Amino acid sequence: MKVEGGRDLWGLMSPRGVAVVGASSNLESISGRPLKLLLKYGYGGGVYPVNPKYDSIGGLRCYPDVGSIDGDVDVALVAVRAPLVPSVIEGCGRRGIRFAVVFSSGFAEAGREDLQRELLEAADRWGVRILGPNCQGLVNLAGGIPLSFSASLDTDRLVGATPGGIAYVSQSGAFGFASFACAVDRGVRFRHVVTTGNQADLDTVEVAGCLLEDPEVRMLLLYLEGVRDGDRLVELLIRARERDVTVGLIKAGRSETGSRAAQSHTASVAGDQRVWGAVMEQYGAVMLGDMEDMISLGLACGLPRPRGRRVGIITTSGGAGIMMADLCSDQGLQVPLLDEGTQERIRRVIPPFGSPANPVDVTAQVINDPQGMTECLSALEADPNVDMMSVVISMITGQAGESTARQVADFAASSRKPLVCSWLIDREHGGDLTSYLSERGVPVIGSLRQAAWTLGAISRPRGSFLSGDLPGLPCDDPLRGLEGLLTEHQAKQVLKAWGVPVTMEEMVRDPDEARVAAERIGYPVALKVMSRQIPHKTDAGVVALNVKGPGELKEAFDRVMDAARRVQGARLDGVLVQRMASGVECIVGVKRDPVFGPVVVFGLGGVLVEVLKDVAVRRAPVSPEEALEMIRSLRGYPIFGPFRGRGPLDQGAVAEVISRVSILAMDPRLLELDVNPLFVMEEGQGVVCADALMNVKGE
Amino acid sequence: MKVEGGRDLWGLMSPRGVAVVGASSNLESISGRPLKLLLKYGYGGGVYPVNPKYDSIGGLRCYPDVGSIDGDVDVALVAVRAPLVPSVIEGCGRRGIRFAVVFSSGFAEAGREDLQRELLEAADRWGVRILGPNCQGLVNLAGGIPLSFSASLDTDRLVGATPGGIAYVSQSGAFGFASFACAVDRGVRFRHVVTTGNQADLDTVEVAGCLLEDPEVRMLLLYLEGVRDGDRLVELLIRARERDVTVGLIKAGRSETGSRAAQSHTASVAGDQRVWGAVMEQYGAVMLGDMEDMISLGLACGLPRPRGRRVGIITTSGGAGIMMADLCSDQGLQVPLLDEGTQERIRRVIPPFGSPANPVDVTAQVINDPQGMTECLSALEADPNVDMMSVVISMITGQAGESTARQVADFAASSRKPLVCSWLIDREHGGDLTSYLSERGVPVIGSLRQAAWTLGAISRPRGSFLSGDLPGLPCDDPLRGLEGLLTEHQAKQVLKAWGVPVTMEEMVRDPDEARVAAERIGYPVALKVMSRQIPHKTDAGVVALNVKGPGELKEAFDRVMDAARRVQGARLDGVLVQRMASGVECIVGVKRDPVFGPVVVFGLGGVLVEVLKDVAVRRAPVSPEEALEMIRSLRGYPIFGPFRGRGPLDQGAVAEVISRVSILAMDPRLLELDVNPLFVMEEGQGVVCADALMNVKGE
Repeated sequence: MKVEGGRDLWGLMSPRGVAVVGASSNLESISGRPLKLLLKYGYGGGVYPVNPKYDSIGGLRCYPDVGSIDGDVDVALVAVRAPLVPSVIEGCGRRGIRFAVVFSSGFAEAGREDLQRELLEAADRWGVRILGPNCQGLVNLAGGIPLSFSASLDTDRLVGATPGGIAYVSQSGAFGFASFACAVDRGVRFRHVVTTGNQADLDTVEVAGCLLEDPEVRMLLLYLEGVRDGDRLVELLIRARERDVTVGLIKAGRSETGSRAAQSHTASVAGDQRVWGAVMEQYGAVMLGDMEDMISLGLACGLPRPRGRRVGIITTSGGAGIMMADLCSDQGLQVPLLDEGTQERIRRVIPPFGSPANPVDVTAQVINDPQGMTECLSALEADPNVDMMSVVISMITGQAGESTARQVADFAASSRKPLVCSWLIDREHGGDLTSYLSERGVPVIGSLRQAAWTLGAISRPRGSFLSGDLPGLPCDDPLRGLEGLLTEHQAKQVLKAWGVPVTMEEMVRDPDEARVAAERIGYPVALKVMSRQIPHKTDAGVVALNVKGPGELKEAFDRVMDAARRVQGARLDGVLVQRMASGVECIVGVKRDPVFGPVVVFGLGGVLVEVLKDVAVRRAPVSPEEALEMIRSLRGYPIFGPFRGRGPLDQGAVAEVISRVSILAMDPRLLELDVNPLFVMEEGQGVVCADALMNVKGE
Repeated sequence: MKVEGGRDLWGLMSPRGVAVVGASSNLESISGRPLKLLLKYGYGGGVYPVNPKYDSIGGLRCYPDVGSIDGDVDVALVAVRAPLVPSVIEGCGRRGIRFAVVFSSGFAEAGREDLQRELLEAADRWGVRILGPNCQGLVNLAGGIPLSFSASLDTDRLVGATPGGIAYVSQSGAFGFASFACAVDRGVRFRHVVTTGNQADLDTVEVAGCLLEDPEVRMLLLYLEGVRDGDRLVELLIRARERDVTVGLIKAGRSETGSRAAQSHTASVAGDQRVWGAVMEQYGAVMLGDMEDMISLGLACGLPRPRGRRVGIITTSGGAGIMMADLCSDQGLQVPLLDEGTQERIRRVIPPFGSPANPVDVTAQVINDPQGMTECLSALEADPNVDMMSVVISMITGQAGESTARQVADFAASSRKPLVCSWLIDREHGGDLTSYLSERGVPVIGSLRQAAWTLGAISRPRGSFLSGDLPGLPCDDPLRGLEGLLTEHQAKQVLKAWGVPVTMEEMVRDPDEARVAAERIGYPVALKVMSRQIPHKTDAGVVALNVKGPGELKEAFDRVMDAARRVQGARLDGVLVQRMASGVECIVGVKRDPVFGPVVVFGLGGVLVEVLKDVAVRRAPVSPEEALEMIRSLRGYPIFGPFRGRGPLDQGAVAEVISRVSILAMDPRLLELDVNPLFVMEEGQGVVCADALMNVKGE
């Protein structure tokens, strides 16, 4: 019944006619301003105020109801009191109006879920798509079409302005249009802004999916408070990458949802917020911490994409240049040495007390040379060590300032490498200069830290999903017939069938069987009582490690069985005799995220994962190639190198296990899984799972 | 000869008369602008242009040289070419001018150390104090005295403006005055700004020490590139704390000085930058990452000091409030639940779809109530759970905006708790509103992240040095007679004499002595060959661990001696028989920092310190109480709690060792020391040093 995404929302973004239901004759009021804005922007379609109280508003004929409108109408803006909205929607449906933008509040956000349901039922009945309620509407700046009451749009600077390449979709109307206004003020150029409010029907992801199909859109900014379905968000990000559209995303509400019942370790180290950040990185979205990040990224829309992460810095102030270098390094960027030829070229135009190294200190004297800045910028652009440029200018004012601004703008207009400009100057001395640059598309970011962040954001890898092939599936259905919390042995049989190496082990029932098994396996062995009622075996004392011979074996067998019999209600499956394993401890786990579904988690075992929560998280599945990236992203990664006398560890074998587990995680019956510990041995010697905890949903 | 700090520099800050040497008749040029500014600001003392080319400049009599000036002159501003400067200084000296501010460049910064030396010699000869060369001078805004050519001062808004409480001292002239202009533009109010340039004589620390004695100074901002003597900086910070003056500090050039020859582990994990950050935290200075931090902290000058780190957030946009809560939490701040009474009070003035919880969402409707914002702010101020307040306002414009601004400003004027305001609005709609707030002393910080940072900065502990008593010294001179890299046994004897528990051990010469010693000590033991030429014993194979009985002992003895004899040039002192120790591995070390001298380093051993460099660093000495704070500051601190079946560790014993080692570190002969590992046992069972490396300078 509902149309999902795609270009089907273009009637909303570019309607042939707009009805304003509940229009006020006071054009400064919330229900009057939509009309004022439509008139101010010179909207070309029909505008139909609807209000039985008036014959005309603002020179336009006013209609008693939507049914009596006599032109083409695609969108109704609804600003009546909440209880009246459902019948208005019904009226829209009868009249064939396909979209309603509901500004009215007093629905779910005010505890009136009933009214919202009523509104949605009316909409569904008539096939009307709803934006809102409790939203601030939208603006299509490419078409000059404001469908909003926001004061942010009530400014001459936006009327007839050249649209940019940014589509911005915000769940919050107040934050959306406030941040929009601040961004415009700083020189960001938008194409579309849509606020979705309560999202009774249309949500941020669906709207963004539609806007993404506008070929002029180069960047997508999202403000999200919650997401109903992480898979649709992921699809959106994948589509954005196909379209080479940068996505920046503010996720408000980062606190973790309270502790849920979870047996596994994985769930406790990979909280919801952790998963969000990891999945966004996996699919190449830039996480925006606040409005400043959004503005900075917005200013960078349209810059050439850098090939790497090496920054060339040009400054008129040595001190500021050094700071910029420090801040770039904080962002994981490099400030490389320049080629000798580049330095020589720069040396010719800067005074002797300048510096041709990177940061290039051209000193305030370079401004005496009308082409000095251009020459230095060109030299940096030509240097193969430089991927992007930061220009940091101090208080250069007056004519010198104008010359500098002109040189930077002219250079940037044709530069193949992105450039960001920080001009440390007050508005009185520099307002005109920075505006000049801004209007010519040069990102002017006064905060050096924010400028460095921006260079970091535009040069980040654009997601690393689906590189490499997934391993073939070794068996049909490893979970068949299983249910609930499995014993270690059951879990390991699943893993073994799935191609994950596990310790050599046998189930036995008495000391004699144990002795035979131990001889087959080879001492030293471990003994563990298997019971689905004893998931935490060490705590229950039902484990004996490092049993070295038959004598010890008998004694250990009796000891662990005694302990097991003391556990109330535990049904014992038998005793597992297991070859002792050793190596560096790792943990591979699966958790089902409420938003993104199955995620795979990898960390170094023991202190690193338990205390420092040093884990890598990805949405499943991942290829062995991607799994290698997970391993390398750990802070504790150096442990995989040679360490304290042993050789490097077998990363490839670990990656294979991560990948296989991640594919297993796609099975919706697998609720949680900890492979813990996975012992990693030296290169070529592989890995072995020494214990596992698995929880399976019944069929 | 030289006057150190104190009020003796007031002749520079408030001179009776000023000579401008090399004054240009073009008042817009660098050598003309100082005159222009003195006239513009209506400086009350005598102004004496000096230039043999002119009879008068700007209506003032011009003198051929400083000697011919006929009034009281305390300061000469010097803007002649570098080679002429030394003789100008000499002239100043003869004329009794006590201070020269040298704008000229072309000295050490341009490779002309010789000219700078000449200048300094002239200054020393005549007792003239020099600011610069290559500086941009200073401004005393309390006295209306500009002694600078900076364009930043060439603005009407500063003339006759009420001075603030900030003293700003910057090594970089360009960055100093540029950041000053940007800060003024944002509402920061300064009292003094001084740039020190090449610091041939006066440096940032000395100037800051003088300005700190101005009783009206409430905040000190510093921009440093290098510091000659860390002790003087530390004294400045201690004095600032006595005066209850907040210190904010930008340290440019944070890259590490290259790898120096160091045997110890400590030096490699506690790099220079690490030491800087740690020492600043220890003495309560706020590290500023860039100009934005400086501006934010500057805006907070004059706010009441918060009692804790709990933030009450009031917002007109739910979304923005949630983001602010997230960003506060990133800064380590709490966003606490409000008392029920507070919530009830707020509920009365906000609409039903608002939220009286924290963040308090007053919604845009609160603006209809002319006292609504005031009532909510007062409720927060009265709540004992709230230490400081964040007000986040979205696009509230027009009369509603004016009412909101008035309420916030009036409330802030008498609030006992600090308040920071973020108004997400563009300049066209909100410029007047935010200026209104700014002018009334309300910090307006549009970036939510920066606002949260500011609340974090003003609520941080103000240094934790010298809390608690130092332990008594257990011996006179533990290093007497020692020199160079000591053997483990030598090092541990020093430590033992100093009150640090070490493993029970004896030096032996042959297997028979070893057997007797091992029986006295008790098996299992370790054997280690002692040689000052074998500092890294394990690598050389001269260590046998866990020797369990006499048979093993003989074999192990021969094995380690064989290995030792293979080390070329190694003179063997004997074999150390040592009781095997165990526990959680830690490391306590000493390094001599090039700036701050002896620092003590503490970390958890093994992976945590070697791979993650999780260490706490402090300038020595530290009391056991401070050492406990070091322990608690580690990311790996949870390891000190109960872990994997053992009880909590003996923190007190570790702190005692850290403190004793830090006192030993004060001995300048101790070049480096690693106590590694220090084994920590459960509470009440203490610690034991199992190995140590010590390097002592000869006397």
